[in-house]
Amino acid sequence: MRYELYYWPSIQGRGEFVRLALEEAGADYVDVARGAARSGRGVPALLQLLQEADLDRPPFAPPILKAGKQVIAQTANILLFLGPRLRLAPKDEAGRLWAHQLQLTIADFVKEAHDTHHPIASGLYYKEQKREARRTARHFLEQRAPKYLNYFESVLARNPRGERFMVGGALTYVDLSMFQMIAGLLYAFPRAMARLSPGYPRLMALYRSIASRPRIAAYLKSKRRLPFNRQGLFRRYSELDLK
Amino acid sequence: MRYELYYWPSIQGRGEFVRLALEEAGADYVDVARGAARSGRGVPALLQLLQEADLDRPPFAPPILKAGKQVIAQTANILLFLGPRLRLAPKDEAGRLWAHQLQLTIADFVKEAHDTHHPIASGLYYKEQKREARRTARHFLEQRAPKYLNYFESVLARNPRGERFMVGGALTYVDLSMFQMIAGLLYAFPRAMARLSPGYPRLMALYRSIASRPRIAAYLKSKRRLPFNRQGLFRRYSELDLK
Repeated sequence: MRYELYYWPSIQGRGEFVRLALEEAGADYVDVARGAARSGRGVPALLQLLQEADLDRPPFAPPILKAGKQVIAQTANILLFLGPRLRLAPKDEAGRLWAHQLQLTIADFVKEAHDTHHPIASGLYYKEQKREARRTARHFLEQRAPKYLNYFESVLARNPRGERFMVGGALTYVDLSMFQMIAGLLYAFPRAMARLSPGYPRLMALYRSIASRPRIAAYLKSKRRLPFNRQGLFRRYSELDLK
Repeated sequence: MRYELYYWPSIQGRGEFVRLALEEAGADYVDVARGAARSGRGVPALLQLLQEADLDRPPFAPPILKAGKQVIAQTANILLFLGPRLRLAPKDEAGRLWAHQLQLTIADFVKEAHDTHHPIASGLYYKEQKREARRTARHFLEQRAPKYLNYFESVLARNPRGERFMVGGALTYVDLSMFQMIAGLLYAFPRAMARLSPGYPRLMALYRSIASRPRIAAYLKSKRRLPFNRQGLFRRYSELDLK
């Protein structure tokens, strides 16, 4: 099965959570919108899929995964679908729900991190909500980020199969997404994370261990991994970080 | 199976999406935090579950569903679990993923509706972010709400099994959640919805059809249905509505 991922080609964004799962599994996939428009790919192919009027089950927004005839959207839903197929999810239903529950909580955390630079409206530019962004970022770094990080640290600490993985005794897509979440925070808020990260030894060990997995390490060094930048979910604005 | 729902007892909030599914199915359930503390229920029981240190799979926040020994959190995840058990989900995997995808998009819409009155931080009072809330609400009502409503209207229009239901030819939990979303918008933004709703005849027909289902109609009239209020997700502040 060759998977087709449709996502904006200039940012990691939410597509990255899907890319990491596909990369770790060594799956056969095409990152469609990063291809050339002249070969039927690129952004035109993404826009066409979003506007396709004869889809019975239209997606609201990217990322979108095509698997044969199935068209699946919503990041966590894509990973729910891919998990068992890529051997990145538990085998039992209760374990899969638990993995998905964590993924949805990571999605909430991601949204709050994004909203630090876009608190008023995602349709306005950062400069149009810069003052508000400072207040939101302060609350995020002082209260919300520690609350989420405490929670995820405790998930590792309580895992009866040991603290190497978020779910059970083997790698799942949740570990890859947790890696990406921490990578995003380290990029966007280096000063805050320098202060916070020593309080989360299990999460930081997970982050390092994912980064050094052979396929992930190769991916991170490749051109397939887009750099973080100021168009994505996680943005580095010095004025939003702690002093 | 007697289900136990744990959610804040004074608001509809996210718990309402679960309550509506349980009510429509005529399921045996206890709304634990609305019980009396002296009988081991009430808010103390909810706080105890949130703080239980020996849970292997701790929830981050309510709503939480206990089903036997399973403890499940995240609204959409609870509905993913309950759907097949309450006969409120399609039978095939692709149909279930589609229902879940719509539910996650409703969750995004809910979060944006909530953020109209709390754009800066959920930990601050409304009065501390009232000015910002006006700007966020204007963008929400002019751009985001129409975008979501257009999308969901098109989902009904494109349903090959007819426009009575969001997914396939039978009721699912998605229809109940769509009802609740529209009910919330009608409560919070009566002037905006008076203008918008004629543009969404299929959604408004769905809303009325759900409200008149016998079990839902009985539930809405009962004391089990909490009224909308200014502590919940959807809040009516005249200054945030269109003029």
